Amino acid sequence: MNNLALDKELMFKAIEEAKRGIPHVYPNPAVGCVIHDGGKILSTGYHKMFGGNHAEHDALQKLDKSARGLTMYVSLEPCAHVGKTVACSDLIDPEIFKRIVIAEKDPNKKASGSIEKIKRSGIEVEVGLLKEEARALNKRFYVFHEQKRPYVILKYASTLDGFVAENDGYSKWITNEKSRKENHYTRSICDAILVGSNTARLDNPNLGSHGLAKDPKIVVINNDEDLSSLNLFKKEPIVYSSKDLTDNYEKNISFILNDLYKKNIQSLLVEGGAKTISGFINSGVFDELHCYIAPKFLGEGLNIFQGKSSIKKNYGLKIVDAKIIGDDVKIIYTRNAN
Amino acid sequence: MNNLALDKELMFKAIEEAKRGIPHVYPNPAVGCVIHDGGKILSTGYHKMFGGNHAEHDALQKLDKSARGLTMYVSLEPCAHVGKTVACSDLIDPEIFKRIVIAEKDPNKKASGSIEKIKRSGIEVEVGLLKEEARALNKRFYVFHEQKRPYVILKYASTLDGFVAENDGYSKWITNEKSRKENHYTRSICDAILVGSNTARLDNPNLGSHGLAKDPKIVVINNDEDLSSLNLFKKEPIVYSSKDLTDNYEKNISFILNDLYKKNIQSLLVEGGAKTISGFINSGVFDELHCYIAPKFLGEGLNIFQGKSSIKKNYGLKIVDAKIIGDDVKIIYTRNAN
Repeated sequence: MNNLALDKELMFKAIEEAKRGIPHVYPNPAVGCVIHDGGKILSTGYHKMFGGNHAEHDALQKLDKSARGLTMYVSLEPCAHVGKTVACSDLIDPEIFKRIVIAEKDPNKKASGSIEKIKRSGIEVEVGLLKEEARALNKRFYVFHEQKRPYVILKYASTLDGFVAENDGYSKWITNEKSRKENHYTRSICDAILVGSNTARLDNPNLGSHGLAKDPKIVVINNDEDLSSLNLFKKEPIVYSSKDLTDNYEKNISFILNDLYKKNIQSLLVEGGAKTISGFINSGVFDELHCYIAPKFLGEGLNIFQGKSSIKKNYGLKIVDAKIIGDDVKIIYTRNAN
Repeated sequence: MNNLALDKELMFKAIEEAKRGIPHVYPNPAVGCVIHDGGKILSTGYHKMFGGNHAEHDALQKLDKSARGLTMYVSLEPCAHVGKTVACSDLIDPEIFKRIVIAEKDPNKKASGSIEKIKRSGIEVEVGLLKEEARALNKRFYVFHEQKRPYVILKYASTLDGFVAENDGYSKWITNEKSRKENHYTRSICDAILVGSNTARLDNPNLGSHGLAKDPKIVVINNDEDLSSLNLFKKEPIVYSSKDLTDNYEKNISFILNDLYKKNIQSLLVEGGAKTISGFINSGVFDELHCYIAPKFLGEGLNIFQGKSSIKKNYGLKIVDAKIIGDDVKIIYTRNAN
């Protein structure tokens, strides 16, 4: 095996290690680490849970410190700051390590900066091996830090002909119980969930994960209606009202996402209604789209897409999965990088 | 192994044999046959192609005729009529066979009637073992003969919000090339394809299988427009016009399907447009629905479903598959038996 093939194999191993920490490390990134002496793996480690030891620390704890000339493979740049744990870059001893291979830099400015520091200590540093694979591990984390906004998932449930409610707003239930349960899981792995005031008023939703995990923070776009009697107002939602918002939906989305970034919301599930979802689709600022499609037709009512588009318009939707749930289908798209 | 378990195993084998003839036997049913002496299988056979020997004949040709006390397992009632081949019931010799197990009766009145004849010859006859599995082999055949109409497949291609064309009727192309190719295959295994006059005029479609197999017969519902310059009129379509039709869509569908039955059309692919598809959906007379869904939104235009329905309405759609084709999804539903 040549050096590159060996390097890749060991970095894959580090990435596999990283996956073991998902979802317990959230909102931290999942990170894995492998230590190798040129012949065999001496130690592995991963970031196990939020607030716990980082991957490098975990691997180093199990290492015989008399070893020399080692290589460390780590799926994210070692942190340079003292947070809940000691800075990892300070743990990497140039007496022991001759080389460190890093899959991708840390986009979090508070944690990054260790590469130069490690180089100065005399350790050879390589960055970028299996970068895409390492980024895929922590998509939300990269969007949050690089684009300074939450990772945005749009979710809706429609009939085959695209309707999300009858004429009077009635929408319970278009999809089956299992589909709704599936979305409760998605809620449980998001920091916040956003609805418009129409959805808040008409559906009066619980917006919780129904006991699956922590409930997400609730965010409501409310054009100054009195919604205080609604279920979700018992949960101290973040409310954006006319004092924050303009007539321009794109500007509003930009304002809201910027504010949620400042509030440290790393992932946002947008659950409707149609006007809100369409605003996000038209703005182009979203990362995933989850469509639950029921085997029904309505013919009239509220269509999911509010606006006028064309067949030629490219929404950059890349299909990830089409999952059968009872007689519903859940289609998951991600956005193209472009 | 008890007798029932052995019987089932051998009938499964007969059904597996039958599958080997698909699609070459079409429009005949796929049929398989197994001959057993109580200890081992002596011979198997299947209906290989339209006009060829029936399954029983195929199995008997390979049988040593000195054997006695045998059981025949056959997935469809042996034919009683002399058609392209000799009547199978005349081939089953009571000197050789003591018992015949038949999965399901023949719904084709011209071919059925052999059961009493075989019984009179002194052979023990059992009917109904793995009946559902045997019917599933030949769904189109059973619908055609039992319901006296073609097996109806509805096909459309829409955006996520349910639109099949822009406001001016433009629809080329909502789905990708692979999706369209997939539908050319469906065309190649249908006897006829039906479109309304709007679709004929706006799309001027070829409606062929694009070389995959024989082209289906074309059927047009035409409200007396002059469409003679269109591509599909070069292919001598069956045309239903105002002299055949009324204002009542259900009656029209019933008339058309009855007429196509008389014309020996066993399977009909309905490709649109929205008005035609909606007519079939509302009438409830269809057997499969193929929805090709593209990752697009239109907001305005022609929606696939023309009518007014409700969330509570049950269309009896049972999902069979959700297939990813590029970034499109093809969802296939069958109707519930109810």
